[in-house]
Amino acid sequence: MSTAAIPSTLRKSFGSDNHAGVHPAIMKAIIDANSGDAVAYGADMWTEQATGELKRLAGAGGEVYLVPNGSGANVLGLGLLLERYAAVICAQSAHINTDECGAAERILGTKLLAVPAPDGKLTPELIESRLAGRGDEHFAQPSVVALTQSTEYGTSYSLAELADIREFCTAQGLKVYLDGARLANAVAYLGCPLADLARYVDVFSFGGTKNGAMGVEALVVMHEAESVSAPYLRKQHMQLVSKMRFLGAQLSALLTDDLWLRNAAHANAMAARLADGLAGIPGVQIVYPVQSDAVFARLAQDHIAALKKDWMFHVWDEQASVVRWMTSYETQESDIDEFLADIAATGAV
Amino acid sequence: MSTAAIPSTLRKSFGSDNHAGVHPAIMKAIIDANSGDAVAYGADMWTEQATGELKRLAGAGGEVYLVPNGSGANVLGLGLLLERYAAVICAQSAHINTDECGAAERILGTKLLAVPAPDGKLTPELIESRLAGRGDEHFAQPSVVALTQSTEYGTSYSLAELADIREFCTAQGLKVYLDGARLANAVAYLGCPLADLARYVDVFSFGGTKNGAMGVEALVVMHEAESVSAPYLRKQHMQLVSKMRFLGAQLSALLTDDLWLRNAAHANAMAARLADGLAGIPGVQIVYPVQSDAVFARLAQDHIAALKKDWMFHVWDEQASVVRWMTSYETQESDIDEFLADIAATGAV
Amino acid sequence: MSTAAIPSTLRKSFGSDNHAGVHPAIMKAIIDANSGDAVAYGADMWTEQATGELKRLAGAGGEVYLVPNGSGANVLGLGLLLERYAAVICAQSAHINTDECGAAERILGTKLLAVPAPDGKLTPELIESRLAGRGDEHFAQPSVVALTQSTEYGTSYSLAELADIREFCTAQGLKVYLDGARLANAVAYLGCPLADLARYVDVFSFGGTKNGAMGVEALVVMHEAESVSAPYLRKQHMQLVSKMRFLGAQLSALLTDDLWLRNAAHANAMAARLADGLAGIPGVQIVYPVQSDAVFARLAQDHIAALKKDWMFHVWDEQASVVRWMTSYETQESDIDEFLADIAATGAV
Amino acid sequence: MSTAAIPSTLRKSFGSDNHAGVHPAIMKAIIDANSGDAVAYGADMWTEQATGELKRLAGAGGEVYLVPNGSGANVLGLGLLLERYAAVICAQSAHINTDECGAAERILGTKLLAVPAPDGKLTPELIESRLAGRGDEHFAQPSVVALTQSTEYGTSYSLAELADIREFCTAQGLKVYLDGARLANAVAYLGCPLADLARYVDVFSFGGTKNGAMGVEALVVMHEAESVSAPYLRKQHMQLVSKMRFLGAQLSALLTDDLWLRNAAHANAMAARLADGLAGIPGVQIVYPVQSDAVFARLAQDHIAALKKDWMFHVWDEQASVVRWMTSYETQESDIDEFLADIAATGAV
Repeated sequence: MSTAAIPSTLRKSFGSDNHAGVHPAIMKAIIDANSGDAVAYGADMWTEQATGELKRLAGAGGEVYLVPNGSGANVLGLGLLLERYAAVICAQSAHINTDECGAAERILGTKLLAVPAPDGKLTPELIESRLAGRGDEHFAQPSVVALTQSTEYGTSYSLAELADIREFCTAQGLKVYLDGARLANAVAYLGCPLADLARYVDVFSFGGTKNGAMGVEALVVMHEAESVSAPYLRKQHMQLVSKMRFLGAQLSALLTDDLWLRNAAHANAMAARLADGLAGIPGVQIVYPVQSDAVFARLAQDHIAALKKDWMFHVWDEQASVVRWMTSYETQESDIDEFLADIAATGAV
Repeated sequence: MSTAAIPSTLRKSFGSDNHAGVHPAIMKAIIDANSGDAVAYGADMWTEQATGELKRLAGAGGEVYLVPNGSGANVLGLGLLLERYAAVICAQSAHINTDECGAAERILGTKLLAVPAPDGKLTPELIESRLAGRGDEHFAQPSVVALTQSTEYGTSYSLAELADIREFCTAQGLKVYLDGARLANAVAYLGCPLADLARYVDVFSFGGTKNGAMGVEALVVMHEAESVSAPYLRKQHMQLVSKMRFLGAQLSALLTDDLWLRNAAHANAMAARLADGLAGIPGVQIVYPVQSDAVFARLAQDHIAALKKDWMFHVWDEQASVVRWMTSYETQESDIDEFLADIAATGAV
Repeated sequence: MSTAAIPSTLRKSFGSDNHAGVHPAIMKAIIDANSGDAVAYGADMWTEQATGELKRLAGAGGEVYLVPNGSGANVLGLGLLLERYAAVICAQSAHINTDECGAAERILGTKLLAVPAPDGKLTPELIESRLAGRGDEHFAQPSVVALTQSTEYGTSYSLAELADIREFCTAQGLKVYLDGARLANAVAYLGCPLADLARYVDVFSFGGTKNGAMGVEALVVMHEAESVSAPYLRKQHMQLVSKMRFLGAQLSALLTDDLWLRNAAHANAMAARLADGLAGIPGVQIVYPVQSDAVFARLAQDHIAALKKDWMFHVWDEQASVVRWMTSYETQESDIDEFLADIAATGAV
Repeated sequence: MSTAAIPSTLRKSFGSDNHAGVHPAIMKAIIDANSGDAVAYGADMWTEQATGELKRLAGAGGEVYLVPNGSGANVLGLGLLLERYAAVICAQSAHINTDECGAAERILGTKLLAVPAPDGKLTPELIESRLAGRGDEHFAQPSVVALTQSTEYGTSYSLAELADIREFCTAQGLKVYLDGARLANAVAYLGCPLADLARYVDVFSFGGTKNGAMGVEALVVMHEAESVSAPYLRKQHMQLVSKMRFLGAQLSALLTDDLWLRNAAHANAMAARLADGLAGIPGVQIVYPVQSDAVFARLAQDHIAALKKDWMFHVWDEQASVVRWMTSYETQESDIDEFLADIAATGAV
């Protein structure tokens, strides 16, 4: 990706939800926050308002911390829960395992115990399969389970699934971290209050960037005791920005009138529309249940190549001939319909 | 700072150059960049344009990398130059030593060899004083010298001073990193092309945030060989933002029509105006030469307390009764004059 | 293991080759080295003699470093080959992955890309399966392949297998580290000069402790360039012992009159005798080829329980009902025969 | 030191107490422990006996852990007391700061706040001078004070000095670690029970290697809560040796019939004899109070050079013309007298 050419012309991107721009209401909030001086590093009214509101929504007993990016949120959040000899159980597909250039190992020094997980979701059984060696000094000690919601495969844990995992983890003395870079999409999909989900985890991130913000993620700590080290580690992990008010303003706008849920619900609806349309196109199989803003599909390699001439998206698994198509808050019904037409036309050749 | 109350009303802040907002031209560039989709993580035209321009201005043989904050730039930049058994020589007052919550030690695992430095500036003699133990396996090996320009005390190295340090370091096999969070202020003060200064260092940061941007710092690598690991380490250090175009747009605006220099020159002029005015006020001594946008002054503790009722600034050294007053691109002559009047009035009581 | 009760009486242990004591010739060398003063940290004649001899035997262009334990050798050795954004490909069963309490992740900050490997041995195909993401900044970069010889399952790579792996790695720009805690057993099994094997790797450890020493492992660096940082990192990794002469003396004794090979050959022969005897006992299956000093066998759980009353050994996989029986330089034919009789008797009940 | 030539003939070394060999009683204990099999990694009767005895002597509520070297003990011990954002206050001359190749920074990621300390000893005032920034997220948080007893300058804290430091630290919420590589020398000097000293610290190391052992240091944890992570971290820090019984046997021998105290008292007496003799030699000044087994002296550079032809010792500070002369349990009165004669002769030229 680092060496990718810059497309001179780009039709609507299905490459990622972070290819979209900034939602107008969020941009307006940024502009409005640009009024005179404000104390740096978070002691400003925008940040106070936004973090207070998210804390309330999540029913959190600890604090909320804003950071500029998702890998930063994950590393900071995991770190709040880890002893230095601890290991983290996660799905093999987890972003912390595959897409953060080894940050968890380098910055936290922790071992990731990755489990192949169908649909990207862990289960008590999968977690149990990596619990060997507890109490034996020769083994890094499995102490934290890291979930992603919605997952890297576009699936979402149900509340019942989360409750099962939580029950198992509590019984086993395991803490639960949740990577919520796309949490809004899962909450919109589940149709539940945020707090109903948050109660099953200890620390979670709440993504703004993939949901219409310019760049803000919030880390929510559910228990006060685990908040103590967070301010220091945020700074040490280089996640404390000085002009914090502009992060606060973004999150504040997202939380106003449920913009976060409306954006996510829209992106989900666009993914569903895409999936519905694909059902009628021969030669295309949907690979995972569509439960957020991503559609994973298998189609012929030459059809993929043909589509790539006009559309931006990622080939997820070259050998399996599987692609990932992502929508965003900005995707229009017409974008989907145009794209579907092209897919159908490619397949019909 | 983390627990500071939020002032409900705040006159012009002299607390830090990052208390200012975003310059209108930069805000406009951000808004203009919000047009349709763009590939994430830097493969966009705004980033390409901005980094290309800065590379040209610096005369750099390596690449330029955008990151969201200054501590991130410092840790990433130092890391490009360090073996795992290396130590960094820096002034005791260096931001990496005093204000980054131990990030250099934690993230890089390096040892900082801090030297008390008058005016915040290292010299060949001061550097030499920390070179003991080279070649002895029991000692972390001094390998990199870290400068700050302008320094944490508001002073600036002259080109001659930098040339001397570089010559000494080259002879000793030491590399040079420069923390340029306020590099623009130093360049404006020196009145030289950026490249004339850049040639004396191996890697440096070029700060935008304290100079009118919303949040962008650039890391400039002068030699191609030291660029190889930078993309990976930027990601691993959680400094790779997804919607990079908005960082690119900020830097681009700063580099357009020398806005970076004009902003810095203005802030410097305001600091000079403040210093000039202080010269006439009894009971106030300026502590360091004013060579950027900061004025350090000593005045009576009760005068400090009186001023703090209406004005925001930091007490730098409580025991020595020294305060730091910083200007910014936004400070107006009238702000200075009002502040001077209050200082004079306080002293006259 | 940390909480294991201390058996008051213990018949010959098949628990591990490190349950054995110190070979008389090695103990004599230790006693002989206790004569007057010697400079600390390795600048002594015993260390010089031993490391020089091993360097010659291995045909190494770099240096040899003595350390007190095997995990230390592995972490130090891997570290010589790793960039900070690098990942290590290893078998899932590798000691660095399962038995070092996450030292590679904590101390080196590296990511282990563990591959399920039949018989504990990697192949070019298995290595290739973990090469995804090279050149992409989002991925830790696979850079080093870590082998174990003989493996944790008692198998040994043939020279042809090592040559294949080396050829593949060279073509892919991958370096090769070899954990040789039981390298002597493999060399004895293969019947080749050490140098014939060493030429396929970049850095390897040469174990003494499991082969009759009290506590010494040697790290052999094949190329001079990769030796530069070794002295510093050995100290930083807390692997530099002060009274080094006693480590040098141990290694020296091992290298005298091929004691290292004779000890290993004997232990191998005892494992082979055990395996041969097991062939005639119904209800016991040998799980892996016996190519060093370990026999992995499957037998009924109640038979395992019965044997454990009198004999010390590890249940390797409780669910699969697989045990590990290890011999050592000290194991006698009569020990094997007694143990076989008991196994047979247990099975006959 | 790593490149030091090996002296072909060496008179009695005054280079370091680790230039001495192994005390006969300790060697005998090693030989005696070499009887048959023993479970590895510490579950053996020698280790149990020795650690139990030291725990009793120290009055420790936590456990005792054996490790092969002093830097390992220091890093492991400090690590038991540190949060990830913590800093350690130590004397600038502390071994952890100057002689461990940056292990504390690399392995623990901690920041060392080093204070110039006369005689190598911290005081409440010196500690207080490094407490700035507590509660401010921008600063690594001073949390642990690291003492050395006896110090790197051969001085020893009195019990009253330790009590004062402890009282101050308790009031400030600081924990206390003590590097006891030469603790025996201090206890012998103070003439108090070990427990009288141990009560002032949270974790300390108890050195064996410099006091007649082959290679063993014990880490003593005074409170049970701080013991929890120790077994895991010992393994992760590569300080868990497999044939632990030989470490246990060494410590056991040291603790039998107060050998540790007798060895240390003898070495102290030899240093005192040297100091007494120097008093009568013109041109030689003793630099620090002689309170253990080291004498630091200033004498003319050409006299140093002349002495170095026949005697092994370290020049401590070339510019100040200061040398360190260390005795050991093995030093004889005749060694001291011969050395004094040579010093006097050199000075008389």
